[in-house]
Amino acid sequence: MSANAAKEPRADHDLGFLLSYENVAWFDDGRVRILDRRLYPTQVSYLVCQTVDQVADAIAAMVTQSAGPYTAAGMGMALAAYQVRGQSALKQKQFLIRAAERLACARPTTAQRMRRITGAGLRLADQALADGQGDLSRLLFDLALASLEQRYRRMTKVGEELISLLPDKASVLTHCFGETIVGTMLRAAKARQMAIDLFVTETRPYFQGSRLTASVAAEMSIPVTVITDNMPAALMSSRKIDLFTTAADLISREGFVVNKTGTLQIAITARYFDVPYYVTGIPDPVSIQEVTLETRDPREVLEAWGVRNTKPGVEGYYPAFDVTPPDLVRGVVTDTGILSPSELDRYRSPDGTDFYAGTEP
Amino acid sequence: MSANAAKEPRADHDLGFLLSYENVAWFDDGRVRILDRRLYPTQVSYLVCQTVDQVADAIAAMVTQSAGPYTAAGMGMALAAYQVRGQSALKQKQFLIRAAERLACARPTTAQRMRRITGAGLRLADQALADGQGDLSRLLFDLALASLEQRYRRMTKVGEELISLLPDKASVLTHCFGETIVGTMLRAAKARQMAIDLFVTETRPYFQGSRLTASVAAEMSIPVTVITDNMPAALMSSRKIDLFTTAADLISREGFVVNKTGTLQIAITARYFDVPYYVTGIPDPVSIQEVTLETRDPREVLEAWGVRNTKPGVEGYYPAFDVTPPDLVRGVVTDTGILSPSELDRYRSPDGTDFYAGTEP
Repeated sequence: MSANAAKEPRADHDLGFLLSYENVAWFDDGRVRILDRRLYPTQVSYLVCQTVDQVADAIAAMVTQSAGPYTAAGMGMALAAYQVRGQSALKQKQFLIRAAERLACARPTTAQRMRRITGAGLRLADQALADGQGDLSRLLFDLALASLEQRYRRMTKVGEELISLLPDKASVLTHCFGETIVGTMLRAAKARQMAIDLFVTETRPYFQGSRLTASVAAEMSIPVTVITDNMPAALMSSRKIDLFTTAADLISREGFVVNKTGTLQIAITARYFDVPYYVTGIPDPVSIQEVTLETRDPREVLEAWGVRNTKPGVEGYYPAFDVTPPDLVRGVVTDTGILSPSELDRYRSPDGTDFYAGTEP
Repeated sequence: MSANAAKEPRADHDLGFLLSYENVAWFDDGRVRILDRRLYPTQVSYLVCQTVDQVADAIAAMVTQSAGPYTAAGMGMALAAYQVRGQSALKQKQFLIRAAERLACARPTTAQRMRRITGAGLRLADQALADGQGDLSRLLFDLALASLEQRYRRMTKVGEELISLLPDKASVLTHCFGETIVGTMLRAAKARQMAIDLFVTETRPYFQGSRLTASVAAEMSIPVTVITDNMPAALMSSRKIDLFTTAADLISREGFVVNKTGTLQIAITARYFDVPYYVTGIPDPVSIQEVTLETRDPREVLEAWGVRNTKPGVEGYYPAFDVTPPDLVRGVVTDTGILSPSELDRYRSPDGTDFYAGTEP
C-alpha cells in the first residue's frame, strides 16, 4: 500500500484534530498508528503497533476509546494480513481468524459490535483468497476506511436529528466521549448558527470528558464547560439544561442503554429535574440478557495521573459501564429518525451493509 | 503555654492518625500547625501558620476540610491573642475582633457555624481582659480544645445512633469526608462487632473520599472500597447498599442539607434504588434562604494533581456544595436521636454550650 494512497485528503476532516481519520487509527507501512487518547491533549503521542496483538492490547488498555476501537480493529485486520503476507492461503486464513477474535474480544462488552467489523474483514479476506487476490492488507485497509466513513456519514445524520430537539440557544450536558456524535452535533448546530453551551462531565478515572469531548468542542470554538462527575445535579439545580445526551456502547433491543459508568445516575438525576435524556446511535440486535458488563482494574480508581490517592489496604471497584433502563430514556436518536426505546424493532438500516452496529451484516 | 500541657494524652485518640487532635489543628509555641489534608496520605505534611491571616488563608485554600476548619479557627483565635500579647487591652480586643471575622468568613457557606467558634472566643477574651487575666492565648487554646472534645463527644453519640439503623452486616455508602462521624460510626460498629463494608466516592476535585475517608477506615482496619463519583448508581445496581450517609456543612431549619457537591445526585439515586439517606450532625438555626453557596476556583476541576486535563479555552464550573431537599432525606441523625427533616425545631442541645452548631451559644 502506498503512503500516498493512505494519506489522501478525506471528507469529514472538519471535525478537528482528534476526530480526523488519521488520528483515530491508521494502517500504513506495516504498522497501525493510534493517537493515545489516555493522554490527549495533555500529551499528543501515538502508539505504533507492529503486531495485531499490540493493537488488541491497545484497545484493552483504552489507548483508543469511544468508537476508536472499531477503526483500530479494522486497521488491525489489515495489519494481521500484512503480518502473514506471502504465506499460504490456509495459513493466512487461520491467522486472520485468530486475529479477528483477539481484536473483537479485547473489551468484552463491545465484542458483538466488534465482531461485525472483524467478521466483515474475514469474509472479504475469504473471498479475496478464493479469488487469488494479492494485497489483502490493502483490501482490509480500504474496508476499515469505508467503515469509518460510513460511521461518520451515519453520525452526521444522527447529529442533525439531535439538534432538531434543541432550541436555537441551548444548554446540553453530555457524559464521557461520544466521539463522532459530539463532533457531528456541534458541527450541525454551528452550520445552523445555533448557540450551544456544552457541559461535559470530566469522566473519571480516564477524564475522557475533560480531555476528549471538551477538546472537540474547543477545536470547533464551541463554548464548553467541564464539571466533575459529582456536579450534574448541582448544575441542573443552578441553570436550565435543555438536554442530556450520550452515545452508547450498546443499545439493546429492549431499549436498555449500556454506556460509560455514570450515565445511569445522570439519567436518574435528569428525570428528577425534568431534563430529557436522549441516547444517540444505532440500536444493537441483542438482548440486554446477553450482555457481559466489563469491570476494569480497580487500581485505576485509586489514582489520578499516576499519583496514588489511597493508603495500602484500600480497595477499588471499577465497573466500566452501567445500564440505563428504557423508562429513563426519552428517545433513541438514530440515523433514520428518533425512536422510542420501546419501539427499537422498527429501526431499519438505511443501507444493506452495517459494519459496526444495527442489523447483522 | 507549656509544650507538655498541649501534648497531654487525650481521650478519643483511637480514631487514628488523621483524626487525632494534634493532626486536626494545634496551637503551640506561637504557631498553629495544620495537617495538609489536600495531600494526605500521598504526602504527610503540615502547614505551620505564624499569623492568623495564614490560618484563614489555609482554611480558604482547604488545607483543612470537613470539621477541621472549626478547630483551626479556634486555634487561630489563640494565635491571634499570641500575636498581640502584652499590648493594651483595647488593641488586643480590636485585633481579636478582626481575627474572628477573618477566620469565620474564610469560607462563606460555613460562616455562621464558624462565628459560633470565634464568637465564643471573643466573649471569653472580653471577660479575661476585663478581669485582667494574662495569658489569653492559653485560655483560647483551652477553649478550642474543649470545643474539639465536645464535638468528638457529640459525634460519638451520633455514631451510635447511626449504627442503630444498620443490620449486623451492612454496606454503607458515604460521600466526601464526614470527619468525626466516619470515625465514630466505624468505631461504634467495631465495638459491637458489626461488619461494615464501607464504600466511599473519591470526591473530586480534592479526592477527600479516597484520601481522607478511606484512610480513616483503613487505619481502623475496616474494609473500604473507593468508587469514582460517577459510580454510585452502578454500585447500587450491582449490590445491596443498606444506607447512604453523609455529614453536612449545614442542615437548615427546614431540613435542607448543604453538603459537598454530589450529595444531591447520590440522594436522588439512592431514592431511585430505595436506599435510605440519613444525614448526620446538629441542625443549624438558620433558614436555607439565608445560606450563601460557595463556588470555588473553576481551574480546580480542569486538573488533577496539578496536571491539566483540558485545552486552552475550556471553562470549568465548581460549585462547592449542593442542596438536598428534605423529601430526599430519610432522617437527621443527631446526638440526641434521629429526627425527621420536617421536625428539626424539636432538636434540643444536650447541654447549654454549643460551639459550632445547633443552638446559639
